[in-house]
Amino acid sequence: ENPVLSEATQAAILELPSEDVALLLESLPGEPRLKVWALISAEERGDVLFEMHDDARRHLINDMEESDLRSMAARLSPQELVELNELIPPKLYSRRLKLMSLKEQTAVNTAMRFEDDQVGRNIDSDFISISEGLTSQQVMRLLRQWEFPSHTDLLCLVNEEGLYAGSVQLTDLFNAHPQQQIKDLKMEDDPAVRADMHMGEIADLSYQNHHAMMPVVDEADHLLGRITSQDILGWVQTEAENQLLQQAGLSEDEDIFAPVKRSAKRRAVWLGINLCTALLASWTIGLFEATLEQVVALAILMPIVASMGGIAGSQTLTLAIRGLALGNLSSSNARIMFRKEILVGLLNGIVWSLVIGIMAGLWFRQPAIGFVIGAAILVNLIFAAMSGVIIPLVLDKFKIDPALSGAVILTTVTDVIGFFAFLGLGSLFLV
Amino acid sequence: ENPVLSEATQAAILELPSEDVALLLESLPGEPRLKVWALISAEERGDVLFEMHDDARRHLINDMEESDLRSMAARLSPQELVELNELIPPKLYSRRLKLMSLKEQTAVNTAMRFEDDQVGRNIDSDFISISEGLTSQQVMRLLRQWEFPSHTDLLCLVNEEGLYAGSVQLTDLFNAHPQQQIKDLKMEDDPAVRADMHMGEIADLSYQNHHAMMPVVDEADHLLGRITSQDILGWVQTEAENQLLQQAGLSEDEDIFAPVKRSAKRRAVWLGINLCTALLASWTIGLFEATLEQVVALAILMPIVASMGGIAGSQTLTLAIRGLALGNLSSSNARIMFRKEILVGLLNGIVWSLVIGIMAGLWFRQPAIGFVIGAAILVNLIFAAMSGVIIPLVLDKFKIDPALSGAVILTTVTDVIGFFAFLGLGSLFLV
Repeated sequence: ENPVLSEATQAAILELPSEDVALLLESLPGEPRLKVWALISAEERGDVLFEMHDDARRHLINDMEESDLRSMAARLSPQELVELNELIPPKLYSRRLKLMSLKEQTAVNTAMRFEDDQVGRNIDSDFISISEGLTSQQVMRLLRQWEFPSHTDLLCLVNEEGLYAGSVQLTDLFNAHPQQQIKDLKMEDDPAVRADMHMGEIADLSYQNHHAMMPVVDEADHLLGRITSQDILGWVQTEAENQLLQQAGLSEDEDIFAPVKRSAKRRAVWLGINLCTALLASWTIGLFEATLEQVVALAILMPIVASMGGIAGSQTLTLAIRGLALGNLSSSNARIMFRKEILVGLLNGIVWSLVIGIMAGLWFRQPAIGFVIGAAILVNLIFAAMSGVIIPLVLDKFKIDPALSGAVILTTVTDVIGFFAFLGLGSLFLV
Repeated sequence: ENPVLSEATQAAILELPSEDVALLLESLPGEPRLKVWALISAEERGDVLFEMHDDARRHLINDMEESDLRSMAARLSPQELVELNELIPPKLYSRRLKLMSLKEQTAVNTAMRFEDDQVGRNIDSDFISISEGLTSQQVMRLLRQWEFPSHTDLLCLVNEEGLYAGSVQLTDLFNAHPQQQIKDLKMEDDPAVRADMHMGEIADLSYQNHHAMMPVVDEADHLLGRITSQDILGWVQTEAENQLLQQAGLSEDEDIFAPVKRSAKRRAVWLGINLCTALLASWTIGLFEATLEQVVALAILMPIVASMGGIAGSQTLTLAIRGLALGNLSSSNARIMFRKEILVGLLNGIVWSLVIGIMAGLWFRQPAIGFVIGAAILVNLIFAAMSGVIIPLVLDKFKIDPALSGAVILTTVTDVIGFFAFLGLGSLFLV
C-alpha cells in the first residue's frame, strides 16, 4: 500500500515528535504527503495538525474519509478543538465538545469568545489554582498529590467567591513557614493579564516580568486560565514569519505545495493591486510622450531615478514602522524624525545626484542630461524621505498596519514623483 | 539645570522600570535624551543601556564624563559587562572584571568565548546546581536556604568530577519520597543544550521541550549556565526586527535620532549597491535606443513589465526563504516547488498578459503593442518564478542569508529580463 516508504522509514516517522511530523508533512507535495499522513494514528493527528499551517491542514482534512475524520475529532484536546474549529464539520465539533469534561467544555467555550490575536484565545486551562484560605503546609500537601503542568512557577489564588485573588511564586512557598497563610505570600506586582489584551502587548509584558507564566482573567476577575512563555514564544515566531509574508502580499497560511490554481488565484490579487500603481507610473510617463520622442536618453535613465527614490524611501519607511511598533515614534517626536530624514535625504541626494549626474552626462555626452537627472534624484530623495515618515504615520492613524501596505504606497509616490521631476525637467531643459 | 523637565516628570521617570527608560531615551532626540539620562543613577544606567540599541547606547556613553563612566562601569552586572564590552574603555572593563567574585568572573569570561548569536554568549549564570549524590530531602533542605532565580523549573545535577549529570524537574522533587536519591529523579529526555549552538536552533527546541529553562554545557560537559525562555523570547523578537531592517539595508542598531551625517553615510552604501543594479537595467534599455526613438509607447509601458515581474518574483522568493528558514524546503523537494511556481507564473502570466495586453492595445490604438507587452509579461513572470526559487537556494548553498540580498538580486534579474523581452520583442514587431 505504501510503495514509496520503506519499513525503516515508516518506523522512523512514527518515532518523531508531532512538531517534526508537521514539518515533514509540510515539506512533502501531494501524494507523498497523504502517504505519510496515513501512517499517523488517530490520537496523534490532532497534535500534528495543531502544529501545521492552515493550507496544509485543509489539504489533509479534505482528503480524509468520513470515518477517519470522526475518529480523529473524537480525540481532540480542548486546545486542538479550538485551533481546528473552522476546519472540522460543525457536527463533529459539537459532538466532541459534549463528550468533554465540564472543565474542558468551559475551556473551549471560553477560548471561542475571543479573537485569534487575543490572549483569551491562546490560554492554557492546565494550571493550578488554590483557595486563598489555606496555610502553606496545606498547600504543599495538596500539591504533592497533583501533577504539575509544565512552565509552572506561580500558583493562582481564588477567593471565596471564586474570583482571582493574586498569585504566589512557587519558590516563595518553598521557603515559607508551614503555618503561614498562603495569601500572605501573594506577589506585590500582580502578574495577571486581561483575556481581551492583544498577544503583542503580552509579549512585551512577558519579557519584562520574568515569569514562566501569567494568570489570565476576564473583566469580572474570573480566572480563565494562564498563558505560558512558550505560548508567547510560539506566537511571536509565527507573527514574525507572517509579517515577512504579508509584505509580499502572501497569506500566512500559504503552503509551498498548495494546488497551482489556488496559489495563482491568491497571488493574482496582489499583482492586480500592483498593476494599478504601475499604471499610475506609466500614466505619469505618458504625460511627457513628446519629450521622450525627442530625447530617448530620458527613457534609458528613467529606472535609475525611480529606483533610487524607492530604496531611500523604503529605508526611512522601515525605520518609521519599527519606531511605531516599538513605541518610540509618535506624533510628539515625528517632527524631529521628519526633519532628520529630510536632511539625510538632502545629503544623500547631493552626493548621488553628483555621481549619477556626472555619469549620465559622460554616457550621453551632454552635460544638460547630467544636470536634469541629478536634480530629479535630489528632488526624489527628499520627497522619498518625507513620504517614508508621513505614510506610516497616516496609515497608523487610520488603524491600517503600515507594514502591510506602506511599501506599495511609498513606491507609487516615489515612482510618480521621480518620473514627473525627471521628465518634467527634461522637457524644460532638453527639448 | 533641567528647564525642560518639571519635577513631576522627573519623579515619574525615576519610577519607570529600566526597559521603559530605555524606550523613552530612544524616543528622544539629542538634547532631551541627554537630560533624561542625567537623571538616571549610576546603578540603574547599566540596566538601561542593556535594553537599548547600540547606536543610542554609543550616543549616551560618548557624552558621559570620565568620572560618570567610571562609576557606571564599576556597577555593571556580569551580563551587562558582556553586552557592553565593545562600548566601554578596555581599562574600565578589566577593572570591573577584577572586582567581581570568582563566579562572576568565570561567567563573563565564559560568555566572551562565544559569538553574539551563540547560546554561550546569552547564558545566565544565575541558576541552581546540585550534587547528584544527595537525597531528595537533603536537596529540599538546601533549597529552603537559597533564593530561587526566576524561570526556575529545573535543577541541574553535577557529578563528583563537577561535570553536568542531568536535570531534575522541580515538580518531580516536590512529589518525591524524602529518602529517594536525587539522581533517580533525572529526566529521561535531557534538556541540556551545547553552548556553541546557534540561538535560532535553541528557539525551536525551547518551543518543543516545554521547560522554562535549559541547562547549557560545553563540549566537555562542563555546566556553564542556563538559558531561559525569556532570554530566547528577547532574542527572537530582536531577530524579527533585524530581519525587517536588513531587508532595507539598514543596520539593526540604527537610531531614529542618530546624527544626520552618520545615518546618511550608512545608507549611502545601500543606495550605491542599488545604483549598480539600476545601471544594469538602464544599460539593457540602452541596447534598444533606436527602437525607443521610433516607438515611444514602449518607454511609457516599461515600468509595468518590470514591476509585475518584480512583484511575482518576490512572492516566490518570500515563500522559498520561509521554506529554507523553517526547514521544509531543501534540494530534495526544490524541484517540485520549482515546477509548481513555474505553473503559477504561467497561469498568472496568461491572465495578466491578456488584461495588460488588451489595455495597452486600446491605450495606444495599436494591437501589436498589446501583443508585445503581453508576451513580455508572460516571459517575465515565468522567469521571475524560476529566479524566486533558484536565487535563495544558490545563496543558501554559499551560506549567504537569502533574506538579506535575495530581493536585490531578484529585482535585478526581473528588471533586466523584463526590459530585454519587452524592448526586444518591440524591436522585432513594432519597428
